Order: sequence, then C-alpha cells, then structure tokens
Amino acid sequence: MAKKYNFYAGPAILPQEVMKKAQEELLDFNGIGLSIMEISHRSKDFESVINAAETKIRTLLGVPENFAVMFLQGGASLQFGMLPMNLLIGKKADYVHTGEWAKKAIKEAKLFGTVNIAGSSEDKNFSYIPENLTFSPDARYVHVTSNETIGGIQFSKFPDTGNVPLIIDMSSDIFSRKIDFKNIGMIYAGAQKNIGPAGVTLVIMRNDLIEACTEGLTTMLSYKTHAKEKSMYNTPPCFAIYIIKLVMEWIEGLGGLAAIEEINEKKAKALYDAIDNSGGYYKGTANVSDRSRMNVTFRLPSEELEEKFINEAKKVGFIGLKGHRSVGGCRASIYNAMGLDGVLALTQFMENFAKENK
Amino acid sequence: MAKKYNFYAGPAILPQEVMKKAQEELLDFNGIGLSIMEISHRSKDFESVINAAETKIRTLLGVPENFAVMFLQGGASLQFGMLPMNLLIGKKADYVHTGEWAKKAIKEAKLFGTVNIAGSSEDKNFSYIPENLTFSPDARYVHVTSNETIGGIQFSKFPDTGNVPLIIDMSSDIFSRKIDFKNIGMIYAGAQKNIGPAGVTLVIMRNDLIEACTEGLTTMLSYKTHAKEKSMYNTPPCFAIYIIKLVMEWIEGLGGLAAIEEINEKKAKALYDAIDNSGGYYKGTANVSDRSRMNVTFRLPSEELEEKFINEAKKVGFIGLKGHRSVGGCRASIYNAMGLDGVLALTQFMENFAKENK
Repeated sequence: MAKKYNFYAGPAILPQEVMKKAQEELLDFNGIGLSIMEISHRSKDFESVINAAETKIRTLLGVPENFAVMFLQGGASLQFGMLPMNLLIGKKADYVHTGEWAKKAIKEAKLFGTVNIAGSSEDKNFSYIPENLTFSPDARYVHVTSNETIGGIQFSKFPDTGNVPLIIDMSSDIFSRKIDFKNIGMIYAGAQKNIGPAGVTLVIMRNDLIEACTEGLTTMLSYKTHAKEKSMYNTPPCFAIYIIKLVMEWIEGLGGLAAIEEINEKKAKALYDAIDNSGGYYKGTANVSDRSRMNVTFRLPSEELEEKFINEAKKVGFIGLKGHRSVGGCRASIYNAMGLDGVLALTQFMENFAKENK
Repeated sequence: MAKKYNFYAGPAILPQEVMKKAQEELLDFNGIGLSIMEISHRSKDFESVINAAETKIRTLLGVPENFAVMFLQGGASLQFGMLPMNLLIGKKADYVHTGEWAKKAIKEAKLFGTVNIAGSSEDKNFSYIPENLTFSPDARYVHVTSNETIGGIQFSKFPDTGNVPLIIDMSSDIFSRKIDFKNIGMIYAGAQKNIGPAGVTLVIMRNDLIEACTEGLTTMLSYKTHAKEKSMYNTPPCFAIYIIKLVMEWIEGLGGLAAIEEINEKKAKALYDAIDNSGGYYKGTANVSDRSRMNVTFRLPSEELEEKFINEAKKVGFIGLKGHRSVGGCRASIYNAMGLDGVLALTQFMENFAKENK
C-alpha cells in the first residue's frame, strides 16, 4: 500500500526503525524465548531496559543529578491533579494560561490551592504566548505548558522565574529541542507524541521538591513513592518503557537533541514557508513569533475548501489534518518521528491544491 | 532455542497466538499502513478496538448491563487508594485480610475511612482463607482479594454480603473462572497476569456506586469521569487495550470462561497431585481447600534443595519458580496462558528431581 503520513496531534507516529526492532523482538526479547511483555518487571532483563531508558533520557536531555526520572501512568491529565496534590495544598502557585491544556492544569490545581493566573492569551483565542507575566512573590511554583497542540503556539524561551521552581508540561514537545534546567523544578510529559506509545508518563523532578511533597497521600499518588522505588513500586508499563528506550536509541543515532532540534526547525520552516508564500491562500493562525514547531495550524479561504483539502489529502495518504473541533481549520502535527520527507510531500500537496482550487 | 516456560507471578506469559497476531499487525494495523500504537485514540480504527474489547469482556464475563467497564491505568495499587477515595470518605468498610495484597488495600483504605477487618489469616502466615467473617451492618462495601499470589490461596466461593456491595481485587485470577455478579459492586484487576500486558487496569463497577462516588475529586481519580467518557477522557493505554482484545478473542476461541476454568482446574490438579503424590518430598504450603489454581506454592525438604531445584529447573527452561522473598520456598504461577503442556513438563521435572535428590 502507499505510504501514509499521520499528522494527528497524538498518539503520533513512531520512528520506523523503532517499530521494526520492536516487531523483530516481539516474540523473543534478547534471546530469552519470551516477549518483553511476558517477563517479570523484577527480572534482570527488564531491569536493564528501564535502567537504560533512564540513563539515555538523562544523557540526551542533560538532566542534572539532583533530579529523579520517573515513569508513571495516567498521562499528563493525572499530573494536572497529582502535582498540586503533592505541592500546592494550602499554598499558591502561578499558572500561565495558554490554551486547552493549561486550562485543564489550572482547573485541577484550583482543587488543592490558590491559583494566580500570571498571564493569559485567552483574549485572542490562545493564538500567542503572553509576555509580561505577573508572578506572585509567594508562589510555590510557576506552571507553563510548553506547547499548546490546539492553538499551535509554543514557548520559544521559558520565563525566568528566579528562585521559584518552574514546572513545565512538555507533553507535546519533549525531546524535540534542548532544555536548560536552570529554573526548572519539574517537567512532565505523556509519551505518545514524541517519545513512545500512550500509557507512560515521564516525570523529571528536582529532589528538594520531591522531599517537600505532601505527606499522607495514597501511596501511588506520592512522587516520593516513585522516586524512592525507581518507578518499580508496582508493575510499571513495561512495554511502553521498552519503546521509549528504543526511541532514545534512535535519537542518539540521529545525533542527539541538537540534531533533532535542527531537523524540527527545518520541518517547521518548510511548512510555515508554504503557508506564508501561498499569496494568502493559507493563513497561519498563531502569532508568528510564537508559532509551534510541533503543531502547525492554518486556515484556507473558506470552510468548504478546508473540508475539501482535508478529504483530498486523506485520499493521497495525509491523515489527521483536521484542526481541533474547538478552533476548526487545519492542523499538521509534525512531531519528532515525522521526517522532513513527509513535510515536503505535504507542502507539495498544499501548493498543488492551492493552484487547483483558487 | 529450547522452549521456555515462564512461571513468574507476573507479568505473565501471553497466548502465543496473541503474540503472533500482534507481531504480524505491528507495522500495519487493519491495512491502514500504521501501527495501532501510531494512530489517534479518537480514530475509528482505535474506537473499534476499544469497543470490541469492552463487548467481548461483557459477553465472556457475563457483565450485567448496569455495570460500566473501564480501562484505567496505575495497576491495582492505584485502585487500592482510588476506591476508598471515591466510596469511603467518612464511612466504614469491611476488608478481609488474606495476605500481602489485601494488606496494601487495607493500608490505603485507612487513609480515607474506617476499616473493619472482617476476617484474617495472619495467624497462620496467610495460608488459608478465613471463614466466619464479621461484617459490619453499616459497611459501605466488603472488600476481598480473590487470589493471593504470595501465599497461594484463593477464594473458591465469595462470601454472601447481602445488600452490601462486594468489591473484589481479581488482579491475579480474572478471566480464569466464571463469576456470579449477584453481590458484586465492583471488580478490578491489573491486566498483566491473565488478560494482557502491564499498563492497563480493568475496572467493572455498578452504576449506582459510580453515581455515589465522592464529588470534587481531581478529574482523573473519579470513576465518574471514566464511566462517562468511556475510558477516553484522555489518551488511554491503546496498545495494552488492543492486546486485551486479542486475549478475549483467544478465550472465545477456546470456548469461553467455562472452558478456561476447566483447563485451569486440570492444570492445578496435575501440579497439586505431583506435590501430594511425592511421598512428602514436596509439601504444599496452603490449606488444601483454599489452594490457588493460579499460584501453586510448595516447599522441598531443605532450603538447599529448593535452591538446587530452582537452578536446575531454570537450566532446562522453567523460569520464575522461586517463591516470594517474604515466604521463601517455590511457587509456580500458572495463569491462563500457561498450557497444560507446560504444567505437565514441570511435573515430570519435579518427579525426576525428587528421585535424583533424595
């Protein structure tokens, strides 16, 4: 069959090399005669997988030694509640409101403490990243959403929060670019966009914050448990962690985060150029300087043409180009595993479509 | 390589047919040119998988219509806390204490409400299922652990709790036998022993209990959320749910739960017969009438012989026979996917070992 390009906002495609390796090893991991899914999480074979995944994450991302790396479950959506449950009870935190994901994080935080909205782009339908943030001097932490998949906006640079820990939901752009851990207290990310399949959440948290977590929480909801037990308090999502390890090896092979970041810049530039050079046929919806390199959102001259565009694209193998129902239009999600070839194929299609549908 | 038999307490082996099918489809699901791991959970292809998984679970298990079927994350360990958080705050519940898993459930419940220990087998190191339970008239629910993997004991029949909902942790024996839903308010199970890989938890809950859940919980920890959104409030663990669907098809192919139960009875009988007919060389540790059909625990004449037994077994392909560190001895876990052939191969080995090591 013809090659398909998946531009869905997530779960996203995974690198072909990773999928092929997973397929090869699916019935017999490491020559043990069993699948990685079929062995004890306490076996040395699985322990070497989770340890390698952690080591590679630390090396590729440059995680400082005073941070724990945890593999949890429940997605970023569980983190929206678990974070304030652990750090916010009876305290105040600053949240930057940039769209649907930030909104969900804010809603859950309000159940546990006081939330100060340090900045918001709600006035313009979340089409930009707010500057001039108003931080509270007594904030326990500052929370930002690194990339908003619906509005297609992304922090190009994180705010300087001084001594207040910066906590970042990086679900949709982790491992797509280098990170400076200077202000960071914690980052978290559901795996299913850039680093693995759905079913595992990566949490990287500074030790002093872990130590300060609320006492008396139910065991599975305390970061202390997972940091102390190195994600093995109970059976972790073994297969998903194994895939993360393979994805990390794939990133290593490409040349690490600097190389991935360069490729992602090229991909985003190609797509935004196709929009900007279309003589107004395609219109980007995000503020130019805040454009996401992961989710490229754009409109066509009419809703009818958008529908036609999405349908014709699908016929030739470009799937998932429909914008989120809350904003409409079109969206191409171009996470790590989407190659420049896929993006260039799409830009070619866009050019042809514009010519044929003036 | 020689065939391996995995007798680990979990994650356990999966049916070979399931693993082969998963391997075949791993790069191209349903002819769509993408893996089931690489598509949106809102796509019709994944929706048909999760819907089929639910339908098959309902049919095979005979789930009454007034129950919701949910695919959650975090394992039974998260349920130990999530259950009392939803149903026990400020109330009382009865728990039957049968071993390590019941103990963990009790510990978490005490964080939220009053726990009455309705019965316990702690006096004899959890080697039996207590009878003569003392229920509280005002209990919100009665909680039991269907099968204890460490002690190797199992409820052959669940207590009659009258109008009080019975809640059962079936992590280690779900889909191994038929269930009568008469008293049941909820059952839950981590998937990784009998129905799938680690990373998904099956929760089946009566609608009136869902409606009565605590208000104001963080969204992901409320059963109401997952029942209302049909496990799709956020991205579910898609691949693990897909494997559950394949396992359900495998059970259908065998003839359903009655057929599986019969096979499991045969497997357990063969293994316990090998123990009981060894002239005292092997000694079962569980009370005979409470013996588990899933985890067969036994001792040899000395710890030295146990060590030798475990090592020699490993050399010829029987892995995971070491008992849990808290009780020592040996344990053979024989979940659904372990065939009678594997059990008979083990009994043959046991017979030979006993002869050669008098």
